[in-house]
Amino acid sequence: MSDLHTAPIAVVGGTGPQGRGLAYRLARAGHPVVLGSRDADRAAGAAAALRALPGVTAPVDGAANRDAVLRAAVVLLAVPYQGHAELVGSLADVLAGRLIVSCVNPLGFDKGGPYGLPVVAGSAAEEAAHLVPTATVVGAFHHLAAPLLLDPEADLSHEDVLVCGDDAQAKARVLALAAQVTEGRAVDAGRLRLAAQLEPLTAVLISVNKRYRTRSGVALTGLAPAVKEEVA
Amino acid sequence: MSDLHTAPIAVVGGTGPQGRGLAYRLARAGHPVVLGSRDADRAAGAAAALRALPGVTAPVDGAANRDAVLRAAVVLLAVPYQGHAELVGSLADVLAGRLIVSCVNPLGFDKGGPYGLPVVAGSAAEEAAHLVPTATVVGAFHHLAAPLLLDPEADLSHEDVLVCGDDAQAKARVLALAAQVTEGRAVDAGRLRLAAQLEPLTAVLISVNKRYRTRSGVALTGLAPAVKEEVA
Repeated sequence: MSDLHTAPIAVVGGTGPQGRGLAYRLARAGHPVVLGSRDADRAAGAAAALRALPGVTAPVDGAANRDAVLRAAVVLLAVPYQGHAELVGSLADVLAGRLIVSCVNPLGFDKGGPYGLPVVAGSAAEEAAHLVPTATVVGAFHHLAAPLLLDPEADLSHEDVLVCGDDAQAKARVLALAAQVTEGRAVDAGRLRLAAQLEPLTAVLISVNKRYRTRSGVALTGLAPAVKEEVA
Repeated sequence: MSDLHTAPIAVVGGTGPQGRGLAYRLARAGHPVVLGSRDADRAAGAAAALRALPGVTAPVDGAANRDAVLRAAVVLLAVPYQGHAELVGSLADVLAGRLIVSCVNPLGFDKGGPYGLPVVAGSAAEEAAHLVPTATVVGAFHHLAAPLLLDPEADLSHEDVLVCGDDAQAKARVLALAAQVTEGRAVDAGRLRLAAQLEPLTAVLISVNKRYRTRSGVALTGLAPAVKEEVA
């Protein structure tokens, strides 16, 4: 992964709100980004729209998912859980050996509102790890509201990004990226398996959003105000 | 439940750290409390210790679990998940018709640290609801660190208590209690089934505590500073 700092970060699902929002914040922090989509033209259109947003200094391109992954060392998965296994499986050969950042929230919705979907692997992050055993998987960015990510004026520095993973070096790298995305605090939440707790917590946030008409996020108490992480 | 304001609040598992801590804060807020334990003498001893803590103005008694429940309209379950079903089942006849506040965290621990245990019912709160169908079950108080609850000097007003339940009136009552426990914010997290997300989130907090040598808790972003709830 010697090209980690020059290669773009790929965002699979880069035309969805979460993917575009994370891509915007990463590009604003100076990281080249390539949006991936099933449809290369849609990805190119979304990339053009991001380039027009304030503060974007790094290149933002669009490509078909497979081509986006091939250009990157770090790949964000920002896709709906529905179809997740099929999509990751179809990209397994190009995801091999890469650092996967899973931002996937396995949620269901019915008349009672949002709820966490059962996942056989425990979590979407662990599912990706099973499907691409040579990749390193880290879970992060589950709780940042997409409309806030995409709002150039929104201050995210009070939001915690909880990061989980079993590879310390990869986790440190994602912690550093997360602190750049929010210009705030990134928290080492522990093992990858705790993605089973982080992912469906988003159901609670959506429920709170509806009740309080807000865009809620997570902050932990009991931590120092700024646990800044630097890229190793 | 006409005696809700004069009857004591029972804390089943009242001799454990979480139970004692919640009982202390409730008693400090002026609520009579009866600690329940399998062993009435242990409960009496724990009650005497709580009465000696600063700020306790309300009566604090100890009793066998069954007797504690019989004296109360509101019953906090603050017991380990191990043995939860058996305990709740054994008290089902006296819990019938009461307001149960489930504070139970189904957690496992192994060499990888804490993790959320699978619960067939979805959550401990829903398990209690199935075992005592005539009770009203609300989930709350999962994330407050017991040592902080028990520390007379600890300020909990920056901690959010996330409360879930399907009965609006019962939930409002628990939201009001929660705001008194922390002298802070209580948040309506939504349906009871979201206890499946709230309960095991404690595994993340314990993991963070170990990594950062702290007592972490949860606060949500995007909400007004004080969503104070009054007893209806």
